[in-house]
Amino acid sequence: MKIGIIGAGDVGGTLGKRWRQKKHEIMFGVRNLQSQNVQTLIEADQNLRFGDIKEAVAYGDVIVFAIPWASVEETILKAGNLSGKIVIDPTNPVTPDLKGLALDNTSVAEKIAKLANTDKVVKAFNTIGAKTLNNSIFDSNRADLFICGNDSHAKRVVEELAIDIGFDVVDVGPLVNARMLEHLALLWIELAFRQQLGPNIAFKLLRRKAEF
Amino acid sequence: MKIGIIGAGDVGGTLGKRWRQKKHEIMFGVRNLQSQNVQTLIEADQNLRFGDIKEAVAYGDVIVFAIPWASVEETILKAGNLSGKIVIDPTNPVTPDLKGLALDNTSVAEKIAKLANTDKVVKAFNTIGAKTLNNSIFDSNRADLFICGNDSHAKRVVEELAIDIGFDVVDVGPLVNARMLEHLALLWIELAFRQQLGPNIAFKLLRRKAEF
Repeated sequence: MKIGIIGAGDVGGTLGKRWRQKKHEIMFGVRNLQSQNVQTLIEADQNLRFGDIKEAVAYGDVIVFAIPWASVEETILKAGNLSGKIVIDPTNPVTPDLKGLALDNTSVAEKIAKLANTDKVVKAFNTIGAKTLNNSIFDSNRADLFICGNDSHAKRVVEELAIDIGFDVVDVGPLVNARMLEHLALLWIELAFRQQLGPNIAFKLLRRKAEF
Repeated sequence: MKIGIIGAGDVGGTLGKRWRQKKHEIMFGVRNLQSQNVQTLIEADQNLRFGDIKEAVAYGDVIVFAIPWASVEETILKAGNLSGKIVIDPTNPVTPDLKGLALDNTSVAEKIAKLANTDKVVKAFNTIGAKTLNNSIFDSNRADLFICGNDSHAKRVVEELAIDIGFDVVDVGPLVNARMLEHLALLWIELAFRQQLGPNIAFKLLRRKAEF
C-alpha cells in the first residue's frame, strides 16, 4: 500500500517506520526537510521518501494527518485533492492544560470529513501512545486499536494496516463516534501523565463468550 | 464492612450478592419491598437486609446509589444525613437514545458531592456491565475497575471492595475525572449494544515496564 504521512513526529515517524518494515511504500509530507525529526528518520531508513505536503498527499492511497489537531484545518486546505483517498485521523483536540477537549459536539475527524468533503475518513491511532505504536505487545496481550468511520472499505483497509503492525482492532462504528475516541484519548493522557502511570499503557477491550 | 445499597436492580443487586459472598453486611434501600427485583434477591439469599432509603443510608458506612442517574438528585435529598459516609456513584447520565451524555461540564458524581456536601464521593462501577460485576474474569485477564474521587481514604476503601469481588483497580485521580469515566461508559454502551458486541465486554488498561 502507498501511504502518505503528513508530519514526521513521534506518531507519524513511528507509523512510517513500522509500515515500512511490513513493505508498505511510505512518503512523508513535511514543511521542513531539514528538521531534526526528518534527519533522524532518514538516518534510520534510506527507503523512506520525503516531500512537501501536496506531494505526499498525491503519492498516497492512504493519507495520515499526524500533526497537531490545531494545524489540521490549515493543512487540509493546502493538501490538494483528497478525493478517493483514505484519510486517517490520529489527532486529539486536547486543551493546552491537557484536561479537556477543545471541541464541543463534533470531533477533529468529523471536521476533516467536512473540510475535505470525503466519507473516507477513519479515526484511528489516537488512543495509544507512540511507544505502543512501536510495540503493541503487553505480556500475553496485544493492545487494541479503536477505529471508527462511515466508509466500510476504508475501515477495512485501516484495520489491515493496524493488524500488520500488531494490533487487535475494535470497530466503534460511524465517524460520529470519533467523539468517544477523542474522550478515550483524554483518559489515556490523564493516566499516562497526570496520574503518572507513564506512556507504557494501552487500552484493551476484554471479550468472552456469553456465559449466562 | 456495612454497605447500604440504594436500588435493587442489576447493578445494585449484583453488587449486594457479591459483597455478601465476601461477608460484608448489606442493606438494600428500596421504595417498594414487593417489587420483583426485591423478591428475587430475598429468594436468593436470606442474609440480605431490606429497608427504605433512609434506613439503608443510616445503616451503611458505604452507600451505593445504584439507581437511574435522573433519580439521583431527588433520592439524595430524601436520603438523610450522608456526612462521614463513603458514597459510591455507579450511574451514567446517558441521553435516552444512549448516544450521548446529558450533562455538560460536570458529572453525576460531582453533582452528588455538591448535593450531599461531602468529599467522600467515589465514582466506580459505572464502566462495566452487570455481567462483569458478577464475574470479572476474562480468560487470563481480570477486568479493570476505573475509579476516581477526592478523598484518598474513601478511594482506598472502594478499591478494597472492588478487589474483594475480583477486580483490578485503576485510580483515575480526582472526582472531576468522573467526566472521563462517564464518557468511557458511553463507549461501553455503544460497543455492547449498537455495535452488538454484547454485554460480555470490559475495559482493561494494559501496563508494562518501560522498555526504552
